[in-house]
Amino acid sequence: MASDQEYMALAIQLAKQGLYTTSPNPRVGCVLVKNDEIIGQGFHFKAGEGHAEVNAIADAKQRGNDTQGATAYVTLEPCSHFGRTPPCAQGLIDANVARVVGAMTDPNPQVAGNGFNILRTAGIEVVDNCLAAESAKLNPGFIKRMSMAGKNTEPLPYVRLKMATSLDGRTAMQSGESQWITGPEARAEVQRLRAQSCAIICGADSVLIDDPSMNVRIETDSRQPLRVIIDSQHRINADANIFTHPGKVVIVSPVAPESAITRNESDACSVSYLQTAASENNDRQQVDLKDLLVTLARQGINEVLIESGAQLAGAFIAQDLVDELVLFTAPTLLGSDARPAFTLPFETMGQQIRWSWQDVRMVGNDLKLVLKSQVSSKEKP
Amino acid sequence: MASDQEYMALAIQLAKQGLYTTSPNPRVGCVLVKNDEIIGQGFHFKAGEGHAEVNAIADAKQRGNDTQGATAYVTLEPCSHFGRTPPCAQGLIDANVARVVGAMTDPNPQVAGNGFNILRTAGIEVVDNCLAAESAKLNPGFIKRMSMAGKNTEPLPYVRLKMATSLDGRTAMQSGESQWITGPEARAEVQRLRAQSCAIICGADSVLIDDPSMNVRIETDSRQPLRVIIDSQHRINADANIFTHPGKVVIVSPVAPESAITRNESDACSVSYLQTAASENNDRQQVDLKDLLVTLARQGINEVLIESGAQLAGAFIAQDLVDELVLFTAPTLLGSDARPAFTLPFETMGQQIRWSWQDVRMVGNDLKLVLKSQVSSKEKP
Repeated sequence: MASDQEYMALAIQLAKQGLYTTSPNPRVGCVLVKNDEIIGQGFHFKAGEGHAEVNAIADAKQRGNDTQGATAYVTLEPCSHFGRTPPCAQGLIDANVARVVGAMTDPNPQVAGNGFNILRTAGIEVVDNCLAAESAKLNPGFIKRMSMAGKNTEPLPYVRLKMATSLDGRTAMQSGESQWITGPEARAEVQRLRAQSCAIICGADSVLIDDPSMNVRIETDSRQPLRVIIDSQHRINADANIFTHPGKVVIVSPVAPESAITRNESDACSVSYLQTAASENNDRQQVDLKDLLVTLARQGINEVLIESGAQLAGAFIAQDLVDELVLFTAPTLLGSDARPAFTLPFETMGQQIRWSWQDVRMVGNDLKLVLKSQVSSKEKP
Repeated sequence: MASDQEYMALAIQLAKQGLYTTSPNPRVGCVLVKNDEIIGQGFHFKAGEGHAEVNAIADAKQRGNDTQGATAYVTLEPCSHFGRTPPCAQGLIDANVARVVGAMTDPNPQVAGNGFNILRTAGIEVVDNCLAAESAKLNPGFIKRMSMAGKNTEPLPYVRLKMATSLDGRTAMQSGESQWITGPEARAEVQRLRAQSCAIICGADSVLIDDPSMNVRIETDSRQPLRVIIDSQHRINADANIFTHPGKVVIVSPVAPESAITRNESDACSVSYLQTAASENNDRQQVDLKDLLVTLARQGINEVLIESGAQLAGAFIAQDLVDELVLFTAPTLLGSDARPAFTLPFETMGQQIRWSWQDVRMVGNDLKLVLKSQVSSKEKP
């Protein structure tokens, strides 16, 4: 007989099938089990479409299985509110399940225990906290955003910062020459990071110098993430590569553009402008990075990927806005005149910023390091 | 019934017991097996004392076991020459073993196949190349030195360069403040690296600024490695901490000292001077680093550990004299004004120096990366 944990592990695997598609909703998986047999399973694929529980119940019915008396394993507390779909807690009650095993309470203040309560009130046995930590990893952005909302603080998205460096922490030669430090497998991994992000932030310098497309080029059902260009002085122009790919691009500045970049209506790329607060302590007006992130979170952006040069990356880090560092380290030395990864003008050891190891693994011939901010983990629920 | 590989793996484990003590000799282990039972085992502990085969035969005798008809597993070809001890090949013949399984041929030109030949001539079955790659890892310095001698090139020791850096590749703040970037486990690992080295090289700047002892402080039977200070301009003085610990210190310069550092005769630390060739292309005379390594190899130094600042480390790397990088990476950012790990003034990607991953593992809360030079691996046998 399989354990609750084993079925929940399967539900988590199912949830991962929504990795590139569910936002702004969370990734959720559900497994229905009766007499130690899986009678139905499902996951949430896309906002507006069926939730995991509904899909699992439909799957059971299609297979000709009766859900009466079954146990439902769900990676997140079933919702209790009418959104674009009816509440899943009611769906489970209607399906006559006898027991619900949940991985974690939904931090969404509209749910926050109500889903489990509705089930209990209906006489269903509820077990919570089954593989909670593993399940939480499915939705770092959704959980961060909802937890902050639940505490009446202005929500922020989960921010990943990706950087490819040499063993000596360099990203390019002084001249800017950099292609390629890391190998094709690491670059493919960056594509997956992009695909699971709701938005990608880069700086105008990157656009002007490297002219990247910043789009997702792997075959997934993923929407293209929102491409956010921080361009305080409105320096980029309509010729940039980033405008030639389908999707949305937003140009961010504390000042309105004198003339907007115009694209043909037939273009698959839509361009818009976002005016943020200006950051203080600067001769020239700069984008207030926290204000930008707050604005993105309000638009339902769960996870943000920063792909920028040393200056912008350093600014996000210095302001404690980065939750996760993803470093790809190539087995090479670029030398002491090469460009640093992060512009952080510290003078004493007391200013150093320490991180917590999350993952270390080889990706092709490069090393992928994942670290979490010690600052934000302290602040987290 | 255990395989040849299993017994050889045991012999390799035995050999490791000589990790800190055998130099200038190689680390060697031996297992004697008869009717699938281990009847004796031994390893080489210290130059001048019994070789692994002799110790294994003695162990068998002490246990009352007859070695006639046994199989001997040895991690290195038994020696064929009279050194400080009689040849081991003859010892195995006298012990009436029926079969010898060797991991690898001894690259020492005085042996180089003669040991196996003597055994075969005596009618003993010889199997070679059993776990050769694993066995070679026991003696990178001995093998490099002997292989170069066998090719009539001037032998060099195996050179490891150790550096503790932040995630952004920095070793200290601009002020020099650096204690401690890495944790106690990483520092303990450095002690083990020192203990298995025959010599440690540091620069005068390190001695003047950090005043390190550069000694081995873990409990092993290890001799203290030779401490080599590169001090081209004779700047260090007798007060340095490095002179207060037992062992030998050698001060290296291309010029003779005007006045030698004198220590009390009662001191456990003996100080000597080594005059090397001067390196070219410098306003001031500098130590020719390759000449220094050649001189150390001639003195029977197998493995060298470089523990220095960015300047000297960069010079060793730029001259392709480093076989192995050992990097301890702490989960911290020290910032872009902090000191680089290696002074290497490259201008183009074409000048980058690529390495091959050997090992990646956590040591306490730090990451230990081991990489081998791609240049020297090409040149190796």
